[in-house]
Amino acid sequence: MNLITIAIGLGLVAIIYGVFTSRQVLSSPSGSEKMQEIAAAIQEGAQAYLKRQYSTIAIVGVIVAVILFLTLGPISATGFIIGAVLSGVAGFIGMNISVRANVRTAAAAQKGLQDGLTLAFRAGAITGLLVAGLALLAIATFFWYLTAVAGHTVGEDDRTVVEGLTALAFGASLISIFARLGGGIFTKAADVGADLVGKVEAGIPEDDPRNPAVIADNVGDNVGDCAGMAADLFETYVVTVGATMVLTALLVKGLGGYLLTLMTLPLLIGGVCIVTSIIGTYFVRLGRGRNIMGAMYKGFLVTAVLSVPAIYGCIWFVQQGDLAAPVGDLGFRGLDLFWCALLGLVITGLIIWITEYYTGTNYRPVRSIAKASVTGHGTNVIQGLAISLEATALPTVVIVAGIIIAYQLAGLLGIAYAATAMLALAGMVVALDAYGPVTDNAGGIAEMAGLDDAVREKTDALDAVGNTTKAVTKGYAIGSAGLAALVLFAAYTTDLAEFFPELDVNFSLENPYVIVGLLLGALLPYLFGAMGMTAVGRAAGDVVVDVREQIREKPGIMTYEQKPDYARTVDLVTKAAIKEMIVPSLLPVLAPIAVYFVIGWVGGRANGFAALGALLLGVIVSGLFVALSMTSGGGAWDNAKKYIEDGNYGGKGSEAHKAAVTGDTVGDPYKDTAGPAVNPMIKITNIVALLLLAALAGG
Amino acid sequence: MNLITIAIGLGLVAIIYGVFTSRQVLSSPSGSEKMQEIAAAIQEGAQAYLKRQYSTIAIVGVIVAVILFLTLGPISATGFIIGAVLSGVAGFIGMNISVRANVRTAAAAQKGLQDGLTLAFRAGAITGLLVAGLALLAIATFFWYLTAVAGHTVGEDDRTVVEGLTALAFGASLISIFARLGGGIFTKAADVGADLVGKVEAGIPEDDPRNPAVIADNVGDNVGDCAGMAADLFETYVVTVGATMVLTALLVKGLGGYLLTLMTLPLLIGGVCIVTSIIGTYFVRLGRGRNIMGAMYKGFLVTAVLSVPAIYGCIWFVQQGDLAAPVGDLGFRGLDLFWCALLGLVITGLIIWITEYYTGTNYRPVRSIAKASVTGHGTNVIQGLAISLEATALPTVVIVAGIIIAYQLAGLLGIAYAATAMLALAGMVVALDAYGPVTDNAGGIAEMAGLDDAVREKTDALDAVGNTTKAVTKGYAIGSAGLAALVLFAAYTTDLAEFFPELDVNFSLENPYVIVGLLLGALLPYLFGAMGMTAVGRAAGDVVVDVREQIREKPGIMTYEQKPDYARTVDLVTKAAIKEMIVPSLLPVLAPIAVYFVIGWVGGRANGFAALGALLLGVIVSGLFVALSMTSGGGAWDNAKKYIEDGNYGGKGSEAHKAAVTGDTVGDPYKDTAGPAVNPMIKITNIVALLLLAALAGG
Repeated sequence: MNLITIAIGLGLVAIIYGVFTSRQVLSSPSGSEKMQEIAAAIQEGAQAYLKRQYSTIAIVGVIVAVILFLTLGPISATGFIIGAVLSGVAGFIGMNISVRANVRTAAAAQKGLQDGLTLAFRAGAITGLLVAGLALLAIATFFWYLTAVAGHTVGEDDRTVVEGLTALAFGASLISIFARLGGGIFTKAADVGADLVGKVEAGIPEDDPRNPAVIADNVGDNVGDCAGMAADLFETYVVTVGATMVLTALLVKGLGGYLLTLMTLPLLIGGVCIVTSIIGTYFVRLGRGRNIMGAMYKGFLVTAVLSVPAIYGCIWFVQQGDLAAPVGDLGFRGLDLFWCALLGLVITGLIIWITEYYTGTNYRPVRSIAKASVTGHGTNVIQGLAISLEATALPTVVIVAGIIIAYQLAGLLGIAYAATAMLALAGMVVALDAYGPVTDNAGGIAEMAGLDDAVREKTDALDAVGNTTKAVTKGYAIGSAGLAALVLFAAYTTDLAEFFPELDVNFSLENPYVIVGLLLGALLPYLFGAMGMTAVGRAAGDVVVDVREQIREKPGIMTYEQKPDYARTVDLVTKAAIKEMIVPSLLPVLAPIAVYFVIGWVGGRANGFAALGALLLGVIVSGLFVALSMTSGGGAWDNAKKYIEDGNYGGKGSEAHKAAVTGDTVGDPYKDTAGPAVNPMIKITNIVALLLLAALAGG
Repeated sequence: MNLITIAIGLGLVAIIYGVFTSRQVLSSPSGSEKMQEIAAAIQEGAQAYLKRQYSTIAIVGVIVAVILFLTLGPISATGFIIGAVLSGVAGFIGMNISVRANVRTAAAAQKGLQDGLTLAFRAGAITGLLVAGLALLAIATFFWYLTAVAGHTVGEDDRTVVEGLTALAFGASLISIFARLGGGIFTKAADVGADLVGKVEAGIPEDDPRNPAVIADNVGDNVGDCAGMAADLFETYVVTVGATMVLTALLVKGLGGYLLTLMTLPLLIGGVCIVTSIIGTYFVRLGRGRNIMGAMYKGFLVTAVLSVPAIYGCIWFVQQGDLAAPVGDLGFRGLDLFWCALLGLVITGLIIWITEYYTGTNYRPVRSIAKASVTGHGTNVIQGLAISLEATALPTVVIVAGIIIAYQLAGLLGIAYAATAMLALAGMVVALDAYGPVTDNAGGIAEMAGLDDAVREKTDALDAVGNTTKAVTKGYAIGSAGLAALVLFAAYTTDLAEFFPELDVNFSLENPYVIVGLLLGALLPYLFGAMGMTAVGRAAGDVVVDVREQIREKPGIMTYEQKPDYARTVDLVTKAAIKEMIVPSLLPVLAPIAVYFVIGWVGGRANGFAALGALLLGVIVSGLFVALSMTSGGGAWDNAKKYIEDGNYGGKGSEAHKAAVTGDTVGDPYKDTAGPAVNPMIKITNIVALLLLAALAGG
């Protein structure tokens, strides 16, 4: 059987798992009428938002597709559309599962913690495996069509396959940055706005039905933390696996049929890890200690351990049983590729462990923030910022070590395989993450429907773990993005040499245009972060104004005699988020083009390319730190608040708690808007540069 | 007359100005007995701190001097000691003027705003011109000794001069990072700690004599904002001018006597700008609009405008009247060097203007933070962080444009001359800055001595301008550091090629070890910032505990019946600051050495050097953004509070004001501890790399 066919088949397994498990989830009881009513409002809001978001993105998408069609031809345009549409579909399905599982999780939590965990995690696993499965199917079928049906070869003379895959990745990335940013602005504007008037001004608890922004807040969990995250990981998967295939095609010369096989290997690895991920999901069960995080890690560990022989098998199969045999003419053996993949798994594990350390309530960082809250708002924020800066150190050391080891083992392709192995676990990692918004919503529904405190306690326990798993996924996504971006950069330099062999591009740090490019690249994440933070602040301000107005117009809201107009707030946040996402999302698309032309005009074409290349690395170098510090810092602030709410330093209502709420508010746009959106941003910059190269070379 | 002699003479002019103006300042009335008593307590505390700080640094300094003596010989050790001692002297004198001018400014403000301004600004000008004068004298006399007395040539065969100048810069930088960080931790720990118990817990105003930490807070202004800043700018001056001379020696080959002349040109430019700075100080006078900032800018503008013909004259003189003649064999004319110097002045002006925009109360950024304070602590901090991220954009664009233009005009030496011209204005810029702590202290003394509210109003008006000028100096220092570091990097690569001609070091971005170096370099400012922030938080916590204890032990403090033990708090902060400054200060010294040896061991010697070089650029690229965002953001937070205190959004005591106080507290360690210390940190990393090269090459 053909290798691509196997990969496609394994992708379909994920879809089948998704359909099968969806039925299970949907068939479980959905609670009282009141709960269903609330859930329906959330669902309606989420769907309305996504509809408007996708309509807006569609306009940008059509324009870009037309440009690609005109510059690079129909295959690139098709690849772009496939990537864009499937990225949207991944987000859409994730959101749809999430808005249905929330109320069912609340209902299940009435029965017990294990029931709630099972339901919420299954919902997460559906999203996770559909993301991985759709991503794998997108690349595998497109690749299959190009090579087997349309008959393009993958060798030196035919660039169609490489450009098609790049365009596919571009489509996924472009949708993803809009979804991450739009969803991120929505969720945090609603969250911060609801907290500001609710908790701070009106003195009503979180998720209180009297707060007109409460439904918007719950909608936000679904469109930001679920749909946005799903689109983001879909993109990371497609770009990483796609970049590995592209780099293989660019590096390996003159191997004929074996090149095709080697290009299929990343797809195969992705495929077998879908199976190990599915097996892993069945191990997420509470043990005797009733440790929820432990249950999650059990599932992850099973997946990771099973993936080792599975990946070994893939390489063994591709190498026809001889791992000691050299891989083409590249100077390393099949076994080396296996070690690199194993390294990717180890990096994933280490990054999860480090993120857990920096964002979990059991360790120094979170506790130091909680302790600093005792002396006030200011010291809480100072300590939180200190932790967010510090949290970049260990992941950087891990990534640096990973780069060195992978490169020593198998050169650039080694780095690519480490990244691919990281992403192969995406099904499981996304499952851990997508579980978060479901439990968050379940808690909200339990509160609003007036369920027993015991139920809320269970959903809160489930939710606390969600804070850490959300931070973990972001650390994982940005870490893998760092490696994937290096692969993309390698593709850029290789492409450049191929397209413009006559140009002597000087990428040396001694070339001032390289320094200029590094500085401008490093600026992008800062500017992008500033725009994201400002957008959240502005939109949250609108929410505050709206909620105040509603409470003034209907004084009966506070006495439960009148019902707030939830839909009005949802609509307002929707409009604000859509408006605010456009400009920052276009920044990474237009910046590389602008830098190439401006520097090329001032310093000559070769320096234009040198500055552009340096810009790509500048974005990675600076973006890695901005994203890691924002996501870890935000998670730490959130859990410092939770730690105080658990009864430390005076507990809920104390001055320390108030300070911790401030820290949490600050961390919100850090960790859920600006930070995670840096991930697709880094890759868009790189992919745009690759497409620009192809366009300049004449398509 | 010999050119070096002229430069030395002009350096002495600065010293004469300092002595002359000191007499003027010291002869003015020093207020009531009560005021003198308070001033004496501040003076005592500041001297005690500096004494202990310098004793601690001396230990590190002696160790380093011995290492330099053993590896590079007596001349390098001597250079190091001169740089270190004079850097310390600059800080020491600045502090001593400042602690005497504060009470006299308070007394003068009783007479009128112009009197207060004149006295405070003169005090600042003394520090400013002594910093510039001492820095110029340090390099000029050492250079004169080496070339004219010891008879070393500056050509290819004798590296003594280059290594001596590098060691001199190292001495200045090493002291400067300790002084910046130790002083920064002291001032902000005392400030934050005093505010937390004073304003927040006990409900007493700032600078209230009942607060046991109030003297420590005022001591902090002198040891951090004055002594620390003076050492920092001394270092920036020495490194920039020194690096320009070193680069000239490395780039220009076989010109004989003319090389010596060309190497003296930066000294001459520094010298004439001392004269233009002195002239400028006499133009700092209130106009009819009584605009204090306007008075400051008048002085700066006069200096900048006069510097244009002065610098032109220097180049004309060195080029013997023919600016169209080529400079050696470097491929550009004398006129091009003049354009580069002019460019440096323009960059200085633009950075001042941008910083004013981001930190002044008249513009959008500060006002947006003030507005966000209305909705709470959280939104204040979010908007402040957004502004701090955004504030990096325009300075980066200016620096990038500067690099490109200077490089097009006169290559690497063009960049060096732009930086030198920037630093030539240091006398004036430091004057604007050192004025700040004097007025800050004057306000504190007025408050504690119970002077009229009208006096406090005047000192407050003077102080508000100080916030902006302090931010301006930091933006200026870090901007020039960016350029100077590029010059140092060029020296590194040139040196490397000379010392190890057989090594093929690949600085291309395509070399993974270069990427590794960039990532590790980018990490340093983050780690350093985290350490600085944590140190402030920890030390401030100690202050809070001490103040609470004192108030408990002596209940009469709050009713003015008992006097707090001010010295006890000063002593506590002193110990804490000294302890906390050691580890972060050694980070940039040890990191380059560690990276070279580890990467060299893993990837071979050439890759060790490549990674080290990339580390240097990584530190610059990331440090520039970290420092700019921290210093601008902190300044904006501070003035947003001031803007509210001026009666906007509810004024003092409103909820918005409380939120703004939180933002100000967060901004404190940002702008006065972590942010500015990044500046010497960047350069230490670079200089250590240069010395390491020399040591590896066998001294």
